[in-house]
Amino acid sequence: MIKGNLVVGQSGGPTAAINASLCGVIEGALEHFDGEIMGMVNGIEGLLNENFTDLRKTFKDVKARDMLIHTPSAYLGSCRYKMPKSSVDSSVYEKIFKIFEKYNIRYFLYIGGNDSMDTVYQLSEYAKKKDYEVYIMGVPKTIDNDLNGTDHCPGYGSAAKFIATAVKEMHRDTNVYNLNSVLIVEIMGRNAGWLAAASALARGENCTSPDLIYLPEAPFVMDEFLSDVKALVEKQKVVIVAISEGIKDSEGVYVCESTASGAVDNFGHKYLSGSGKVLENAVRNNLGFKARAVELNVFQRCAAHLQSKTDIEESRKVGKSACEAALSGTTGKMMGYVRVKDYEISYEPMDISMVANVEKIVPREWINERGNNVNEKFVQYAKPLIMGEDYPAYSDGLPCHIALEK
Amino acid sequence: MIKGNLVVGQSGGPTAAINASLCGVIEGALEHFDGEIMGMVNGIEGLLNENFTDLRKTFKDVKARDMLIHTPSAYLGSCRYKMPKSSVDSSVYEKIFKIFEKYNIRYFLYIGGNDSMDTVYQLSEYAKKKDYEVYIMGVPKTIDNDLNGTDHCPGYGSAAKFIATAVKEMHRDTNVYNLNSVLIVEIMGRNAGWLAAASALARGENCTSPDLIYLPEAPFVMDEFLSDVKALVEKQKVVIVAISEGIKDSEGVYVCESTASGAVDNFGHKYLSGSGKVLENAVRNNLGFKARAVELNVFQRCAAHLQSKTDIEESRKVGKSACEAALSGTTGKMMGYVRVKDYEISYEPMDISMVANVEKIVPREWINERGNNVNEKFVQYAKPLIMGEDYPAYSDGLPCHIALEK
Repeated sequence: MIKGNLVVGQSGGPTAAINASLCGVIEGALEHFDGEIMGMVNGIEGLLNENFTDLRKTFKDVKARDMLIHTPSAYLGSCRYKMPKSSVDSSVYEKIFKIFEKYNIRYFLYIGGNDSMDTVYQLSEYAKKKDYEVYIMGVPKTIDNDLNGTDHCPGYGSAAKFIATAVKEMHRDTNVYNLNSVLIVEIMGRNAGWLAAASALARGENCTSPDLIYLPEAPFVMDEFLSDVKALVEKQKVVIVAISEGIKDSEGVYVCESTASGAVDNFGHKYLSGSGKVLENAVRNNLGFKARAVELNVFQRCAAHLQSKTDIEESRKVGKSACEAALSGTTGKMMGYVRVKDYEISYEPMDISMVANVEKIVPREWINERGNNVNEKFVQYAKPLIMGEDYPAYSDGLPCHIALEK
Repeated sequence: MIKGNLVVGQSGGPTAAINASLCGVIEGALEHFDGEIMGMVNGIEGLLNENFTDLRKTFKDVKARDMLIHTPSAYLGSCRYKMPKSSVDSSVYEKIFKIFEKYNIRYFLYIGGNDSMDTVYQLSEYAKKKDYEVYIMGVPKTIDNDLNGTDHCPGYGSAAKFIATAVKEMHRDTNVYNLNSVLIVEIMGRNAGWLAAASALARGENCTSPDLIYLPEAPFVMDEFLSDVKALVEKQKVVIVAISEGIKDSEGVYVCESTASGAVDNFGHKYLSGSGKVLENAVRNNLGFKARAVELNVFQRCAAHLQSKTDIEESRKVGKSACEAALSGTTGKMMGYVRVKDYEISYEPMDISMVANVEKIVPREWINERGNNVNEKFVQYAKPLIMGEDYPAYSDGLPCHIALEK
């Protein structure tokens, strides 16, 4: 192991599990390494601005680490910085390597989604040309579950657990009146329907919802949707529909951009309404039923009060494994999940080139033919990911978080 | 105690605590009474249709009662039936008393909000004229916290805990980027701002949000709002604003009905957007900042996975006290909370005439002069109500609920 320091950053959209991965990286370093454990504040931007925080000092105490894994969002902050290709503009890479040298940084860990894995890829490719020894590893993270290579993504299980719980609670809520009504639950996911599909996990004892599930992976046909809703309301009165925000018609046009949503405000601006609102209006105007759209919104990614214990443990371990791999001389890889047996996870370094810039979608064969439901294959895949509860400590009635001093 | 049977119903909008009150009523009856414990299915409509369920049978087992208190929404179902004044139309009262006689119902308990307490009032007034001995008691319930007489309402504490937790989690989520942004959190409350005010409880360790709070009790002035947001963004970049859905201007016009929201869809229908969307557009169009509105929506009333232990214990006790009072010969009252010392609750029968049809709002002196925040008086009042956690049992990764067979 080369003497030097380690730097870790978080990037992309926040999740309820990204801090568990950060905790894992820190724990790997604390266990095996005596150099500095530096955190970049606000991702690669923090590195470029030499804005670091001393993670060894803050997190040598196990209590601080316990609080970290229960804190939603990214402790180190995030950024939206998109790295240029080094073949196009190498100046930023030059700058990064100067900073590596200045701080004797020999281990670089980056926790993030698709774009962040591209950063890891670009950086590790560039490193091959440099006469400077540095080990670069990616740690996956995204509630969208759309990273290639890994069985699933850290953060997805907690988001899925929140979504399934919310749908189960809404099932009770919506069934309180003995009246016709349609509830449309709009769930994140622009091109991949993993999150909306997770609503299917709500089904089980005392819950038949959602009745219909629409994902971007199967074309949305408004007429079929309306006739399915009509038949269900006539049969059972209360209907709950789960949709991805990114459902689109057979021509690939997003429902939220279709003419049905062509409202304008009094500035003449196109009124940006979600897909849920479009369906709500369609049900009300065409079928005359009481309809209501609900967006699950940011809670899907920040409801740390309802984490999946499985997700948090795996997210922590994948961070630790990535750190250990870097310290043992692995570079240019993303540490990912391989499912062995049913259900166990093995942590394995994956070729970053097959991860970056590829979006993994829900297999079409996990969706029924009519495109209004997922089948048992999806449920078998996703169910283990929401298992177990891991509650934060509470103080004064509220969950305790840890925050970086600004 | 007169020999006979007891009937209990739930009415109005669901909450995360209304089943705890039902549980309390059942426990009071199980302890002191050997008649039938009948549940009306879907409130007074169930009584009129003689649609009953045997609660003694289902809930003699303590495990079923434990599951009941952690099940959101109304186990017995609810209705939107509005009783006519008996002076206008006494036929429905005649019918109810015939059913009382038919089933030898001597104890009538009704759990609900404003309208439900009116039902209790009308029924108990009518009973005075009848030669039939029946004891009629109300049990308060509403997340809106707007019932007169009682210190606070069963259900409010759990809603407040969810709101404060959500705002605290969104504070972490929103601060992840070092970029200007405004998040507007729209919270339930048409005329009373109790729920939006509860967002103030999020403030404390590692959380300064919400920065601004607007309630229906103080007139909303758009220019002042925009200048306050502008100053805050310039100072701290990220701003979180909590609003009641029912905020209105100095003329009493709801913000969501103001001209700023005058969008129409392509059917020419007025586009019903929430107050949050109106403010989001106002911030974007007038100040040019990134802005996003989030509705907390039904989770405020059905997030039983995050109940306030204090609320659930009190809701259960107030149900039990009401049942015991009826069995001891009290009638025409609502059992309510009296705050004694700081913090203890005494359960006392309250004159139903002072409860029904009165809406309790947030005192103006608990809101600051500019009308953009609540002060310490509100926090002192509300803080005890969110204390303690009481988790449901989980099975297969999801909270367990109990449901009435249909």
